[in-house]
Amino acid sequence: MKPLGDAILRKFRKELNSGIVSLVLLAILDRSDEPLYGYQIAKSIEGTWQEGAQVKQGTLYPVLRSMEENGLLVSRVEPSVSGPPRKYYSITEQGRAVLAEWKEAWSRARDFVDATLEGNVG
Amino acid sequence: MKPLGDAILRKFRKELNSGIVSLVLLAILDRSDEPLYGYQIAKSIEGTWQEGAQVKQGTLYPVLRSMEENGLLVSRVEPSVSGPPRKYYSITEQGRAVLAEWKEAWSRARDFVDATLEGNVG
Repeated sequence: MKPLGDAILRKFRKELNSGIVSLVLLAILDRSDEPLYGYQIAKSIEGTWQEGAQVKQGTLYPVLRSMEENGLLVSRVEPSVSGPPRKYYSITEQGRAVLAEWKEAWSRARDFVDATLEGNVG
Repeated sequence: MKPLGDAILRKFRKELNSGIVSLVLLAILDRSDEPLYGYQIAKSIEGTWQEGAQVKQGTLYPVLRSMEENGLLVSRVEPSVSGPPRKYYSITEQGRAVLAEWKEAWSRARDFVDATLEGNVG
């Protein structure tokens, strides 16, 4: 494939990732028994995704901040024995309500794409 | 839910859609026996997606143009008996190669999100 094709594939991956990273992040905080800080969330994501390098901590922090500003998350800062203070995030009731709707939107989009790729559409 | 939550949900849907509309569009042209024009592609998408209004023709045309510029599609203009000339699109070999890679990227992303939502991750 030409380099041009690679650039298009990267663009697709980037768009797809930006669409799902918020969903995944919220789901991880939803099922966590305790508040998590950015590094823990990043590791949880990277450990599972085969192309783990796609979700960097640098990608997560703006999303975390935006979600807190919008009331989906709350945070508290705690000192760390091994470095700078850490910001721990928890999901709010508002966050759980948004997550429930996101899950529905995701299911519909996923089923639609899968049906299209399987050629059952048209 | 507060209006704020609705705005966030809309943003999520928009990101998710922009990530998959290119994939779906290419897949539709891939399995079509003949070239299709924009309206046909839009109808094919809208007829299946439950929230059909999400993929407007206005969303498709810039994607079609960009894909043609990048060699994934070719087009030819033909007169129409019932209106202005129509631009018919076909997928190229380059387009099929990109589609194969997009499908793989989609499968990985989908499985990852589904695993996270089911709580089997972390």
